[in-house]
Amino acid sequence: MNYISIKDIDSLSKWVKSAIKIKKDPLKNKKLGKNKTLGMLFFNPSLRTRLSTQKAALNLGMNVMVMNFTNEGWTLEFEDGAVMNSGASEHIKEAAEVVSQYCDIIAIRAFAGLVDKEKDYQETVISGFLKYATVPIVNMESAVRHPLQSLADAITMEEYKTKHKPKVVLSWAPHPKALPQAVANSFVEMMQMQKDMDFVITHPEGYELSPEITQDCKIEYDQDKAFENADFVYVKNWSNFNDYGKVTNSDPNWTVTAEKMALTNNGKFMHCLPVRRNVIVSDEVLDGENSIVIEQANNRTYSAQLVLQKILKKI
Amino acid sequence: MNYISIKDIDSLSKWVKSAIKIKKDPLKNKKLGKNKTLGMLFFNPSLRTRLSTQKAALNLGMNVMVMNFTNEGWTLEFEDGAVMNSGASEHIKEAAEVVSQYCDIIAIRAFAGLVDKEKDYQETVISGFLKYATVPIVNMESAVRHPLQSLADAITMEEYKTKHKPKVVLSWAPHPKALPQAVANSFVEMMQMQKDMDFVITHPEGYELSPEITQDCKIEYDQDKAFENADFVYVKNWSNFNDYGKVTNSDPNWTVTAEKMALTNNGKFMHCLPVRRNVIVSDEVLDGENSIVIEQANNRTYSAQLVLQKILKKI
Amino acid sequence: MNYISIKDIDSLSKWVKSAIKIKKDPLKNKKLGKNKTLGMLFFNPSLRTRLSTQKAALNLGMNVMVMNFTNEGWTLEFEDGAVMNSGASEHIKEAAEVVSQYCDIIAIRAFAGLVDKEKDYQETVISGFLKYATVPIVNMESAVRHPLQSLADAITMEEYKTKHKPKVVLSWAPHPKALPQAVANSFVEMMQMQKDMDFVITHPEGYELSPEITQDCKIEYDQDKAFENADFVYVKNWSNFNDYGKVTNSDPNWTVTAEKMALTNNGKFMHCLPVRRNVIVSDEVLDGENSIVIEQANNRTYSAQLVLQKILKKI
Repeated sequence: MNYISIKDIDSLSKWVKSAIKIKKDPLKNKKLGKNKTLGMLFFNPSLRTRLSTQKAALNLGMNVMVMNFTNEGWTLEFEDGAVMNSGASEHIKEAAEVVSQYCDIIAIRAFAGLVDKEKDYQETVISGFLKYATVPIVNMESAVRHPLQSLADAITMEEYKTKHKPKVVLSWAPHPKALPQAVANSFVEMMQMQKDMDFVITHPEGYELSPEITQDCKIEYDQDKAFENADFVYVKNWSNFNDYGKVTNSDPNWTVTAEKMALTNNGKFMHCLPVRRNVIVSDEVLDGENSIVIEQANNRTYSAQLVLQKILKKI
Repeated sequence: MNYISIKDIDSLSKWVKSAIKIKKDPLKNKKLGKNKTLGMLFFNPSLRTRLSTQKAALNLGMNVMVMNFTNEGWTLEFEDGAVMNSGASEHIKEAAEVVSQYCDIIAIRAFAGLVDKEKDYQETVISGFLKYATVPIVNMESAVRHPLQSLADAITMEEYKTKHKPKVVLSWAPHPKALPQAVANSFVEMMQMQKDMDFVITHPEGYELSPEITQDCKIEYDQDKAFENADFVYVKNWSNFNDYGKVTNSDPNWTVTAEKMALTNNGKFMHCLPVRRNVIVSDEVLDGENSIVIEQANNRTYSAQLVLQKILKKI
Repeated sequence: MNYISIKDIDSLSKWVKSAIKIKKDPLKNKKLGKNKTLGMLFFNPSLRTRLSTQKAALNLGMNVMVMNFTNEGWTLEFEDGAVMNSGASEHIKEAAEVVSQYCDIIAIRAFAGLVDKEKDYQETVISGFLKYATVPIVNMESAVRHPLQSLADAITMEEYKTKHKPKVVLSWAPHPKALPQAVANSFVEMMQMQKDMDFVITHPEGYELSPEITQDCKIEYDQDKAFENADFVYVKNWSNFNDYGKVTNSDPNWTVTAEKMALTNNGKFMHCLPVRRNVIVSDEVLDGENSIVIEQANNRTYSAQLVLQKILKKI
């Protein structure tokens, strides 16, 4: 069993219930991970994922080995048949096979490079590990997806929803730097698995996510209209998917403010963090009582713990 | 309970006694930290603090998560109300609140930048964590203070003192690079809590530490005079506090040599390490039998262990 | 007891047997390392060594503290009597003595600089730790030797040998960058301890390893001739020892191909990894059924575990 995409979840509602149960007694399965080792390989920075996934593993009694691959290890080659006479010192085939011998589960973070769309959307790094590793792989944010985040988001919405069929908005917001689409992609995929939620995506024209991800999701280019009666507003910047990896819009009118939140049905504000204050969202909203970003981050531990627990039970 | 300053200690003599007791049986409280997690966040390099604090936590049975914040995480914003459209990706408010959810205690190292005196002496980083974290904070050297070091120093002096009221000298010594005042500041504050010690600070004119720190401590500009009959000579470089962060003096006459130590009462040589040989102190003194720098470093473990133990008992 | 060189092994055949026994039940000595701490200090990148040595320590129930010395700690001075007024902040004497107080065993990786032959072959870094540390030292690849690798190689050959007196070839192969001689040196030293193996070294003329290492080992400049009837082909690049640290040959005719392996006695292909595909060795050979590089890497865990176990039993 791997956890690469939110689609690896068989029943989202059951998983969410299990995670909430874990949250009530996180040390209950302290023996499950005894003498099992989680290898955490980072190709990019990480705060929440780094600490919450470690914490989850410790709650399960696992050993954890953390490695910042980029500066602590060797540059990897991902192409089959490559003549490796320039930069890369090691092929993903050996790296993945070897690490599999030292770890019972391998978790990987490898962001989109945002230069080569095709390469990013082929998930070069995580696909390489998937292909060659001989142990389960957990996605700690790949080029295209961030399913530990989306599971935490689902848990958080379950905890805060106040009616049977809430309205959920995913809203783009401006950001000075080019960011990957991974969080938004996985959130969309997670929402597609929700049975009783109304979902709408809002962003400036031209900022459409990959149509293979959004499929028939409702898109509303008017942010105000999208916010109307929303119960949850999930805000996230992403760089342009069509003009790949570019920042083609930084319109401050898309910043989420108290005025905009006033259009909602007393809606909760969500963001995966880190968040740029007064660019993505105003202080007033982020610090307001309807902001549930800190609890979202808290649920990262239980999201990761559920995934590790599911895998441990199968190995 | 936080441990930010040596002034957080209610009774220095009792703490020193407790630490010496821990040193005799460091694994006695191995169960105290079970299932508790120490998060160690480094914004700067560290050898002794990194390893001794980890060791202390392990002696208490804690889990430890170490993070080099600067290159493994996100750049932090510390200003309230900031429009975060340039360098920083995350505000201290979210970072501190989030990390508090994964850790039972957070330990932080964040040196003085030595450019902006006001910012440094407001303790921007550690104050930010103090303000927003919801778990106890331990100072692993902040811009202004290094209280784990000073507690270790107090332990070491207790172990090596040979008379009721020893004379202790804090002496400046030259160094090629600009160093923070933190170790010296905390040593001064610790000495002010000592009941039965004569304390004098010696440094070139113009190298006065913050008067808010030194208060009415005796200052002697003649190093030789200061060393007379000293039982402990604590040597440390610091950069200029008045001409802030500058190296305005590198007079080799302030290097501590055997000739100078001969003026003392068979005085012990102390330094927090790392120390630049034959710049701060001659090989002869550092390698001599009166040098107790290695034991000082050893006591860092018990200093940290006492602090963690005190905190664990309260949470 | 230190483990600096393969020559620190009293009986290679007994050690190999012990390691194979550990491999069958790696958790058998889980209590041996209880409350013991391994400090792993890296001055260079590492994947296999980093993870396998950690894994070995965890299998023995040890605590592990990993430190990337170069960017997490202080620059070290190794010269006695140095006036430390430029780059280095700390002398090896203090560093080694201090770390010895926090760790029960210190493992060190410090590659050859490949600029100053004399300095490299004096093993400046690991010799400094050996001189000043007060706890056992384990070599995780020094300037001259990589004995954890060579022990793993011996284990692997024992597992795969099919006749009493196999023929073993150490073959140089081309590489775009200058690499240390450490792996080759230690392999040679290990082969000199093998009783029932025929050993030959092959490399281009001028690429002789240190004569103090190779002593009276057979050298064959004709790679094809060397490969004839070989049971094991151990391939490794090293930079020129005579024209020290230079790449003076990159002849692709030395790349190990299926044609060359056809000259052997159905020989096994070995390499310590990381390996540059289609430069050191063709994909066909590396991916072929006679390639045992992944098992070699697997045996790194048991090599390290045996060494740690031997040391733990003596402290």
